Amino acid sequence: MPTFDWPLGELRRYQPELTHEPDFDLFWQDTLAAARECTDAPSATPIDAGVRAFATYDVTFPGWAGEPVKGWLVLPSGGSARWCVVEYQGYGVGRGRVHDHLLYAACGVAQFVVDARGHSRGDTGDRSAESSGPHEPGFMTQGAHDPRAHYMRRLITDAVRGLDAARSLVSASRFAVAGPSQGGGQALAVAALGDGVAAVLPDVPFLCDYRRGADVSDRVPYLEIAQFLRKRPELVDDTFRTLSYFDGMNFASRATAPSLFSVALMDPIVPPSTVFAAYNHYAGPKDIRVYPFNEHEGGGSLHAMQRLEFLRKLAEF
Amino acid sequence: MPTFDWPLGELRRYQPELTHEPDFDLFWQDTLAAARECTDAPSATPIDAGVRAFATYDVTFPGWAGEPVKGWLVLPSGGSARWCVVEYQGYGVGRGRVHDHLLYAACGVAQFVVDARGHSRGDTGDRSAESSGPHEPGFMTQGAHDPRAHYMRRLITDAVRGLDAARSLVSASRFAVAGPSQGGGQALAVAALGDGVAAVLPDVPFLCDYRRGADVSDRVPYLEIAQFLRKRPELVDDTFRTLSYFDGMNFASRATAPSLFSVALMDPIVPPSTVFAAYNHYAGPKDIRVYPFNEHEGGGSLHAMQRLEFLRKLAEF
Amino acid sequence: MPTFDWPLGELRRYQPELTHEPDFDLFWQDTLAAARECTDAPSATPIDAGVRAFATYDVTFPGWAGEPVKGWLVLPSGGSARWCVVEYQGYGVGRGRVHDHLLYAACGVAQFVVDARGHSRGDTGDRSAESSGPHEPGFMTQGAHDPRAHYMRRLITDAVRGLDAARSLVSASRFAVAGPSQGGGQALAVAALGDGVAAVLPDVPFLCDYRRGADVSDRVPYLEIAQFLRKRPELVDDTFRTLSYFDGMNFASRATAPSLFSVALMDPIVPPSTVFAAYNHYAGPKDIRVYPFNEHEGGGSLHAMQRLEFLRKLAEF
Amino acid sequence: MPTFDWPLGELRRYQPELTHEPDFDLFWQDTLAAARECTDAPSATPIDAGVRAFATYDVTFPGWAGEPVKGWLVLPSGGSARWCVVEYQGYGVGRGRVHDHLLYAACGVAQFVVDARGHSRGDTGDRSAESSGPHEPGFMTQGAHDPRAHYMRRLITDAVRGLDAARSLVSASRFAVAGPSQGGGQALAVAALGDGVAAVLPDVPFLCDYRRGADVSDRVPYLEIAQFLRKRPELVDDTFRTLSYFDGMNFASRATAPSLFSVALMDPIVPPSTVFAAYNHYAGPKDIRVYPFNEHEGGGSLHAMQRLEFLRKLAEF
Amino acid sequence: MPTFDWPLGELRRYQPELTHEPDFDLFWQDTLAAARECTDAPSATPIDAGVRAFATYDVTFPGWAGEPVKGWLVLPSGGSARWCVVEYQGYGVGRGRVHDHLLYAACGVAQFVVDARGHSRGDTGDRSAESSGPHEPGFMTQGAHDPRAHYMRRLITDAVRGLDAARSLVSASRFAVAGPSQGGGQALAVAALGDGVAAVLPDVPFLCDYRRGADVSDRVPYLEIAQFLRKRPELVDDTFRTLSYFDGMNFASRATAPSLFSVALMDPIVPPSTVFAAYNHYAGPKDIRVYPFNEHEGGGSLHAMQRLEFLRKLAEF
Amino acid sequence: MPTFDWPLGELRRYQPELTHEPDFDLFWQDTLAAARECTDAPSATPIDAGVRAFATYDVTFPGWAGEPVKGWLVLPSGGSARWCVVEYQGYGVGRGRVHDHLLYAACGVAQFVVDARGHSRGDTGDRSAESSGPHEPGFMTQGAHDPRAHYMRRLITDAVRGLDAARSLVSASRFAVAGPSQGGGQALAVAALGDGVAAVLPDVPFLCDYRRGADVSDRVPYLEIAQFLRKRPELVDDTFRTLSYFDGMNFASRATAPSLFSVALMDPIVPPSTVFAAYNHYAGPKDIRVYPFNEHEGGGSLHAMQRLEFLRKLAEF
Repeated sequence: MPTFDWPLGELRRYQPELTHEPDFDLFWQDTLAAARECTDAPSATPIDAGVRAFATYDVTFPGWAGEPVKGWLVLPSGGSARWCVVEYQGYGVGRGRVHDHLLYAACGVAQFVVDARGHSRGDTGDRSAESSGPHEPGFMTQGAHDPRAHYMRRLITDAVRGLDAARSLVSASRFAVAGPSQGGGQALAVAALGDGVAAVLPDVPFLCDYRRGADVSDRVPYLEIAQFLRKRPELVDDTFRTLSYFDGMNFASRATAPSLFSVALMDPIVPPSTVFAAYNHYAGPKDIRVYPFNEHEGGGSLHAMQRLEFLRKLAEF
Repeated sequence: MPTFDWPLGELRRYQPELTHEPDFDLFWQDTLAAARECTDAPSATPIDAGVRAFATYDVTFPGWAGEPVKGWLVLPSGGSARWCVVEYQGYGVGRGRVHDHLLYAACGVAQFVVDARGHSRGDTGDRSAESSGPHEPGFMTQGAHDPRAHYMRRLITDAVRGLDAARSLVSASRFAVAGPSQGGGQALAVAALGDGVAAVLPDVPFLCDYRRGADVSDRVPYLEIAQFLRKRPELVDDTFRTLSYFDGMNFASRATAPSLFSVALMDPIVPPSTVFAAYNHYAGPKDIRVYPFNEHEGGGSLHAMQRLEFLRKLAEF
Repeated sequence: MPTFDWPLGELRRYQPELTHEPDFDLFWQDTLAAARECTDAPSATPIDAGVRAFATYDVTFPGWAGEPVKGWLVLPSGGSARWCVVEYQGYGVGRGRVHDHLLYAACGVAQFVVDARGHSRGDTGDRSAESSGPHEPGFMTQGAHDPRAHYMRRLITDAVRGLDAARSLVSASRFAVAGPSQGGGQALAVAALGDGVAAVLPDVPFLCDYRRGADVSDRVPYLEIAQFLRKRPELVDDTFRTLSYFDGMNFASRATAPSLFSVALMDPIVPPSTVFAAYNHYAGPKDIRVYPFNEHEGGGSLHAMQRLEFLRKLAEF
Repeated sequence: MPTFDWPLGELRRYQPELTHEPDFDLFWQDTLAAARECTDAPSATPIDAGVRAFATYDVTFPGWAGEPVKGWLVLPSGGSARWCVVEYQGYGVGRGRVHDHLLYAACGVAQFVVDARGHSRGDTGDRSAESSGPHEPGFMTQGAHDPRAHYMRRLITDAVRGLDAARSLVSASRFAVAGPSQGGGQALAVAALGDGVAAVLPDVPFLCDYRRGADVSDRVPYLEIAQFLRKRPELVDDTFRTLSYFDGMNFASRATAPSLFSVALMDPIVPPSTVFAAYNHYAGPKDIRVYPFNEHEGGGSLHAMQRLEFLRKLAEF
Repeated sequence: MPTFDWPLGELRRYQPELTHEPDFDLFWQDTLAAARECTDAPSATPIDAGVRAFATYDVTFPGWAGEPVKGWLVLPSGGSARWCVVEYQGYGVGRGRVHDHLLYAACGVAQFVVDARGHSRGDTGDRSAESSGPHEPGFMTQGAHDPRAHYMRRLITDAVRGLDAARSLVSASRFAVAGPSQGGGQALAVAALGDGVAAVLPDVPFLCDYRRGADVSDRVPYLEIAQFLRKRPELVDDTFRTLSYFDGMNFASRATAPSLFSVALMDPIVPPSTVFAAYNHYAGPKDIRVYPFNEHEGGGSLHAMQRLEFLRKLAEF
Repeated sequence: MPTFDWPLGELRRYQPELTHEPDFDLFWQDTLAAARECTDAPSATPIDAGVRAFATYDVTFPGWAGEPVKGWLVLPSGGSARWCVVEYQGYGVGRGRVHDHLLYAACGVAQFVVDARGHSRGDTGDRSAESSGPHEPGFMTQGAHDPRAHYMRRLITDAVRGLDAARSLVSASRFAVAGPSQGGGQALAVAALGDGVAAVLPDVPFLCDYRRGADVSDRVPYLEIAQFLRKRPELVDDTFRTLSYFDGMNFASRATAPSLFSVALMDPIVPPSTVFAAYNHYAGPKDIRVYPFNEHEGGGSLHAMQRLEFLRKLAEF
């Protein structure tokens, strides 16, 4: 996949109009207030999955509608930590296995991995009473007719409540939100909606500037939108109106914590222009690492070190 | 797509072992009994969509859990008809628009088009209380952990109840069940589970011999199964056990009405071996039209005439 | 296929120079005069293909060089009609089967389906004395050396004579020309060259702005031009000069009847810029429906209703 | 393209039933007798295309129906030659430019290059009175309804008449027929139908065992057959019956001159089984060079030397 | 990528003939003896890459011709370990960054990561004092003319010397060799050639049964062989004779340590038949985990746990 | 592959900044001086490969580090020639077989074919006494860490020394340098670095404006650069700095002989903008033939004649 999006100079100047409806903030106030009516405490059960160097826990916390959402907590040896990173997951992924998440703890940082409801590598069903269990997509257009019914409302609510859970479970002095792709989009949402966010680390964030994504990406998940609208051309406007409630650029304009973005200029799944749409609107301190020849893997393990350095500069650990 | 499956001679002999679990029949008895607890009558509202030659109705009938399922009824001029064809729809499709369904009525046959819950071209949400509305896939692995939770349980229940609705709404002397692809798989299920089926017309039927489909097809929807199991290799056996409750070859072995199948030998979406798995197990009178160079479009408008001739031979109209 | 052509704003402004040679009009006057030397009347034979709701006829009329061209006539019940739509067919298609054409009659409009000589789904040979019969392409470069020898000269002449035939066979008060893709290109030609056209309905019209099409489309049929010129690079100018005699944008600049175009912004077969090249040059009243996420299927059955509404606004039926 | 056809052992044993109709030989007797009614002598005009080492001529000879067919004659310095190779051309090619054909003359062998009517790199129109000129395909299904109307009847007749022309123009002691792909298929036809053939050199010959080719190749030109029959499934049997008159395996069973075939086991355009269908039926002395990792380029310039050695063994030059 | 190789039952029975030349063992004795002439001790320098939970070292050891080869050593806290896993890397990879390798140490196992000379993610250069001969881009055919000049001779020698280095640097009671893809092929070679191997863990091992790989894989790196032989068809036999010196199935027949293989049935890069060629010839205790729907990622993090359990069963840790 | 690069008007104006480092000229002075320390005379051995019309020789000459490089010399009959064309070869090619090179001699021009070290169709091995460093399979990034270690340093030195060899072996009055793709890039380098160049004929020249090539081409060989930098994102700047020493646009700005370029506007392997980068910087008399619909084959045999005409205009032969 060669460069298919605009040149870097244009990307840096790209500032699409924000798309939030007048009731955007109210929508989220109501949504989160309703979710927080469930006052169940998160539970964290120690597990032995063979990982001996760190304390590992299987977590359950109340997410959207109080439904149980899963997570992994991985604590570095030595108990408390300066930082706790709350990490969200990519589309089609989920929390995976606990031994997939060792880097932060190995470097002395606590990590709380939040599952993605319904996604294949997770353990959290969507709408638990009649849980669909993990399954293969598509989630992009589930509830396209109404923001209140859309899947992303539930996913983002889980993300905010995941931060709440981390803050009640982990004795860290600072909390960061992070994640690749869909997880990066969730991190941006939590940066706007959550409490006590000290750093935001969105990598090749998905869920930003959906219209541009659907216009120029020929890969799922953005392609799911185009495929749906191809069959329902009369729903174009309604669908993007619904998606505006979950758009990372709208969230970015409401976020204030220091942030480190990453973007890959040959990313066919999350086109770089959609990342810059959010980055250029981000309202807090910000930096972005540009990987000119990478695709959706972004900066990979090189960027993993960049994230840790960024946290260290904010508060040594 | 050239020929990729077995040669025709081998296809005609392919007889995989049936996969139904001991409680297969009980599962469906219970499922249908529960659905029939809802005794709401179907409603049929005349509509004016510009089609003047036929009487057209927007139908709502109770499907799985009594949830409202949509349909179109198209009646030939002259009122009653010798035949009513209950037609199910392909994956990702749905009932579409009423003017997409004119052929049967133009030839003097009543047609009842049953919507496919959740699919993009339809108007029926899946689980209506919090309806997801129509959206892009994937449905193949929704509920892979338990046959009671699987999407196909709801879809097939809708199909049986759609036949019930047609029989209460249409004054025809005979009812056929029909459909392309996923609709063909539903028709096979109704042939086994429904009441008063006089003919079965599955075209390039999907939902048969899932394991073979997942092994040899590189296209969605069968690919959704492989993509899911790629991420969850520990769930291979459980997933196919769940799918066995919805497998057209298991239904075919329980069906007795006269049937006309069609199969396309270059079909990459529904591999011909999966069609023959159901056809070779079909327990009633049967015939199959083989289209050697066609892909998933099957016999197209040529086969449309074959279906009408087949009905005419069973009972002139 | 994501958006690959210009953004909509630029498309609306795209106005390539017309390419007609000085003898363009003379060429067509001579061509049509020669064709009309054949004064054989069209014949229409009633057929019974199972379609009982409408009167259906197998038509033969004299086309280019008086050669017999086939068509289907489908009349709504009740005899005369307010409108008759003369419909041309897509590349590689042809008149198909009569039961493929039911929508107009079901809505009370007469339809005359004109076959496409040589194309696979038709029944009209190209140059009948030694007819090649229907076959698979390519037609785009047949006769590239001379407009008088080019296939499109014959195809367009058939189209004009098809309108002549419809007018002599059908007692309708108004005649529209219509068609998808290649059929849309023919409709534009007839709009410029034919007599008594009351409406023009080109859907994702092919045969417009060939140079742009050959430059940016990677699919047949435009690709046939690039593939030919790749082998014969010395013939670039001659070939496009020949094609200019059959270019929909040159015809559009000579047409005056009210028109409704459609265009799909992700159409890889007929790039949207080539459609706007014709639309922007269209000399009569005009409107265009833009389908932003569709490919070459265009607006599908949604747009089918738009066409009927457009006719109804011009003259109620 | 990895190996997709049978393993070499099976290929060597593959012996499909011959498909010639009872009137196969009569058909060709009549066809050639009619063509030979034209007794015009071939003309050979010396040209100066910059090639100074050899005498080069632009040839015109009477082909099917006496129509003018073009060719190049390239004579080694020194006048007469021991061998003259009559070479036919690939699908979509044609005689090209004279300086594309230097190898045989450089090695002391006369070469007569026969054009392929209608193909893009040639200069011979198909049906010259209203010549279509060279153009891009497809030729495979032109006249599928009747062997007398099929394009291949004309192409093969040209091939036989090309040998006649060579024999009247060139003072060589022996004449070989040769060609790659479609040219190899023509060479096999001339080996059966022509007079005075001393050697046959078919490279990756196309036009053999059409049914197998259409079943297993996903590339043009065999794909043209599948694409046609996909649209016209009712014509499967008729089409292959027509093609049987032009099938290299039927010709091979009637040929007696010494032959050297070549085949490439990863050839997606001419599947190796179709080559072995002809080779295994070849009735004269025969040998075949197998290139296990090559695609349709076959043995390339390595095999070019094999051909010359083969001729040298038959008669030193 | 659907199933393209043989069914599992056939795979389990596949037993191609071994291909080692008579001097195979001598070749490797000489090669290793020459390499061991360099008696430089490996060096291990502690590094601070941010990983605090484990002791991490940058290692340099003498490989082929005594050239410096790089590695990472990662030791679990607590000093000595029951097991040390020597891990080799995939084609195009290399040792990467030290924080890419945390799992073994987190579970209490020492890990020595051996770099792959020349590969992109490594830090070890390759040199070819002997001529590489003509070859296709990539490593597979570098030195195809002579086993002594072939790249794989150097890579495998590095692997054996890497085990030597680990044994001198790490105080573990048992040493296992392991690796994915190319690393798995190296592990098999070291299982045959190295000293003191207590377990062998080849995952989707590459470098086995090259002929089958080149015949059926359409992806690099096996494709490099086909691409080379396509250009040099005269070198087919010589090339596979050279490769036989580096074939995992020849090594497997000489290995005796307990082994756990993994294979993925939809792996297009390392076809499952090539894995079974080595597995079925493996001479020691053996087991294999089959992942039916996975591609080249194999069993991923699920299989990572299987490897640790396998080691634990051999010797608790 | 449709047009993907800029429109022709923009291409003609594209003038990227030159990228040569301050020591660029010194680097090459030193490199060539070192190579010329080897004073071995080239050897030319007459061969009999069946080509009787011309004198053919197998040549060995000292290239980089005095290593033996192969070539073919083909002399027209009649001894001395007005022109000798020194021709370099494409990536993955090499000198091939002598009978692949007949056109120049047939037209009265001597040709010296210089092999490409290491490439598959050649007979010249490559050696890298200096470490290649980590690199991606292929030649583009071999030695990316240091211009002195890079493969292209050796390849270009061979090219200059090939001209030296031709001048000592052939008694022609003028010497031209020529070649397609990689050979065209070498010709540009020799035009800047070599002695006594009377004409330069680069066809679709590769090795120009590497950054643009890596940005927009999705095919090897430029893709090798992107694939390498995807794995080593920290090396982007260093890698392009190394490549600047071998960039055809830097060489073009130092060349003065009359030149004829060719470019193909749909070339996905050598994007047209990279050709114009060199052409627009070319410092001598220049012309360029633009092939609008061709891909990497460029102008093919049509352009072969253009090259000969260009030479003839400079000095009649």
